[in-house]
Amino acid sequence: MTASPALLTDHYELTMLQAALRAGTAHRRSVFEVFARRLPPGRRYGVVAGTGRLLEAVARFRFGPDELAQLERAGIDRETRDWLADYRFSGDVWGYAEGECFFPGSPVLVVEAPFAEAVLLETLVLSVLNHDSAVASAASRMTCASSGRPCIEMGSRRTHEEAAVAAARAAYVVGFAATSNLEAGRRHGIPTTGTSAHAFTLLHDTEREAFAAQVAALGTGTTLLVDTYDTLRGVRTAVEVAGPGLGAVRLDSGDLAILAHEVRAELDRLGATGTRIVVTSDLDEYAIAALAAAPVDGYGVGTRLVTGSGAPTAGMVYKLVARATSDDPAAPLVPVAKRSAGKPSVGGRKHAARRYDAAGTAVAELVTPSAVAGDGVRDLLVPLVRGGEVLAREDLEAARAVHRRSLGELPREAKQLSEGDAALPTLSSPDQPLPEG
Amino acid sequence: MTASPALLTDHYELTMLQAALRAGTAHRRSVFEVFARRLPPGRRYGVVAGTGRLLEAVARFRFGPDELAQLERAGIDRETRDWLADYRFSGDVWGYAEGECFFPGSPVLVVEAPFAEAVLLETLVLSVLNHDSAVASAASRMTCASSGRPCIEMGSRRTHEEAAVAAARAAYVVGFAATSNLEAGRRHGIPTTGTSAHAFTLLHDTEREAFAAQVAALGTGTTLLVDTYDTLRGVRTAVEVAGPGLGAVRLDSGDLAILAHEVRAELDRLGATGTRIVVTSDLDEYAIAALAAAPVDGYGVGTRLVTGSGAPTAGMVYKLVARATSDDPAAPLVPVAKRSAGKPSVGGRKHAARRYDAAGTAVAELVTPSAVAGDGVRDLLVPLVRGGEVLAREDLEAARAVHRRSLGELPREAKQLSEGDAALPTLSSPDQPLPEG
Repeated sequence: MTASPALLTDHYELTMLQAALRAGTAHRRSVFEVFARRLPPGRRYGVVAGTGRLLEAVARFRFGPDELAQLERAGIDRETRDWLADYRFSGDVWGYAEGECFFPGSPVLVVEAPFAEAVLLETLVLSVLNHDSAVASAASRMTCASSGRPCIEMGSRRTHEEAAVAAARAAYVVGFAATSNLEAGRRHGIPTTGTSAHAFTLLHDTEREAFAAQVAALGTGTTLLVDTYDTLRGVRTAVEVAGPGLGAVRLDSGDLAILAHEVRAELDRLGATGTRIVVTSDLDEYAIAALAAAPVDGYGVGTRLVTGSGAPTAGMVYKLVARATSDDPAAPLVPVAKRSAGKPSVGGRKHAARRYDAAGTAVAELVTPSAVAGDGVRDLLVPLVRGGEVLAREDLEAARAVHRRSLGELPREAKQLSEGDAALPTLSSPDQPLPEG
Repeated sequence: MTASPALLTDHYELTMLQAALRAGTAHRRSVFEVFARRLPPGRRYGVVAGTGRLLEAVARFRFGPDELAQLERAGIDRETRDWLADYRFSGDVWGYAEGECFFPGSPVLVVEAPFAEAVLLETLVLSVLNHDSAVASAASRMTCASSGRPCIEMGSRRTHEEAAVAAARAAYVVGFAATSNLEAGRRHGIPTTGTSAHAFTLLHDTEREAFAAQVAALGTGTTLLVDTYDTLRGVRTAVEVAGPGLGAVRLDSGDLAILAHEVRAELDRLGATGTRIVVTSDLDEYAIAALAAAPVDGYGVGTRLVTGSGAPTAGMVYKLVARATSDDPAAPLVPVAKRSAGKPSVGGRKHAARRYDAAGTAVAELVTPSAVAGDGVRDLLVPLVRGGEVLAREDLEAARAVHRRSLGELPREAKQLSEGDAALPTLSSPDQPLPEG
């Protein structure tokens, strides 16, 4: 585990720094933008997540003796290491608020600082935003599909153990109710939940003994896993052991839509009309939607959540879009962009705003050279770091509110699971007409 | 960052523990097996990775005051927390050596311990093995496809920042030459490498100035990125600046197969016959294979590596397969397995061996109730922890050797990229005939 995140960085950021320091270009004021060239195939919107984690990491980004010793082993020269020993990010950062929806080309983060300071953050910025936004973007479709029924994140075992904590956090930002991950509870204050696995039933000589042991320890409000042997018999045993006040049963295999109806009928027949049915087992947004008509009270989602439901990375890049003509802090910025074939970028610093119609529905993402103000337009870039000082601390409840508002403003088709275009067009001029709908 | 990994664990492991402690079943001797029910679609083999990381984490797995305080907040009772305060894993673990190939049903890890001790490790075991094995399994196909040309891991920015370190490690296990990730250099001793991005060229007033700055700082042996503006002009400028002794050029966009030929011809025409060509840009095993006939000297692989090339998790599960009939340490083990529809498991402890033909080519994976010995059979489970003591320390060079040997023993079709069945059948009895080929 790393006290400073400074080495969670690609080697080439350091060789670029070394070369720029030697050339006298390292201190040119620079603007980097983070954006996704496209959404994953068929997706209507993306969700920015990880901003809070990123800002916390930037505040700890330091090169101590241990980091510098590794850089020496990696061949970074003494001049560069001496400069890094005093490294503090002194620049400004703006970004989309955590939880905000984004579209192709949206500048979700803008970093302005001397090149030397800004280039060092590239890898960490992208790691955090690409991972967390990928999970949040998938998770948001799942909470849309669940139509208000609670979703629980339980994918820790299907991803890297630290990515699991971040995934739980990203899912919570977009409306998941809880997580199975205890560290996410400790680190981020997210509610944690869990009861038992098949192993617990198998440990005991009978299913009845297992249920009795669980109820004795956790109370009748617990969730009993009823599908180890015969599911409907498991339901009857569960109610016999816990009584009709049993909190919930969990189904983790079989045809969940059919089983949920059968289990609901059996619970009701037994008088356990308040006992909820929680389903798990390889759920994704489509499986959740397919269960909309089934008597299901909650969804536990694992693998497909933590792997971004087919899009495990958000595809964001960190591109230099403008830089000063000299290292004079007053030197003007000039726009820059790669020009050869493939992966083109648009040079120059961009502003970002969202335009609304008279009903308050978002109609376009404005990514423009100049700021756009006026009625029916909302500025999307909020200050996150000023003069090296992190302005915002992590606030997941605020991020949840941002996401609810942002999603609520999108046109209705944004929430369709079917494949389609981005829900908003990205316009590079406020005068550009909206594409035909 | 977490000193102890104990909370990188699903909540339900703790509630199961609490219920089992209260029921008096927590100390029943138990055997859990880790296996994948299937390989990702079309894959011929998987690769076990993460074992060294896992053993290091198990040795640190402790519940200190901070962890216990979080468990109290999560509702875990005092008796359970008191028991956890003294938690040390005291059991035995066997597993496939890190770097070994595996097949559906291969018991890649076997944990024998009292239920209470073994159940707590489930989440961490699966997180580490599922992530690292997914990356290694994809990466091994890439090193096969590259036919000896070096592959460099550079996907840090496309995955969680800590997953990035583990991904670099997993890629190294299966033969990658280096990584861009500096923390992987520090933590695991993996060679790190990197030179410059398009931003470095764009920082300077001309491409020539950028190249001169880089060569001045890093020497003529460096790798110049030549595709910011016009690639062939970039090549000429690179050789003019660095001379014909230039180490390498990097191509990061465009049609790499065509460009590599054009760039090779241009380099040769300029006398830079020893200058290597390194290609990057959304490579995967198929793109690498497609460049086999192109004059390419090395591959940098990012996104598709760290996301498992379409299979970001290895699908391994941790299942109770046997447990004692009482908490008497001498009580006999009985096989157990879930029996209802879907996700069936085979109860009982399994041994694992690989059978070879007379030429030394592997022909079958034997996953059997009893050990199989004799000529032409290799035992696959090696002791990793005995009586709670970790026997093996991380040795990545040994893991690389294991992988080379293991892959070398597989039938030739294992290395085909085309979709197909697992390269070895998994047999549950040594007398079971091989399926028709």
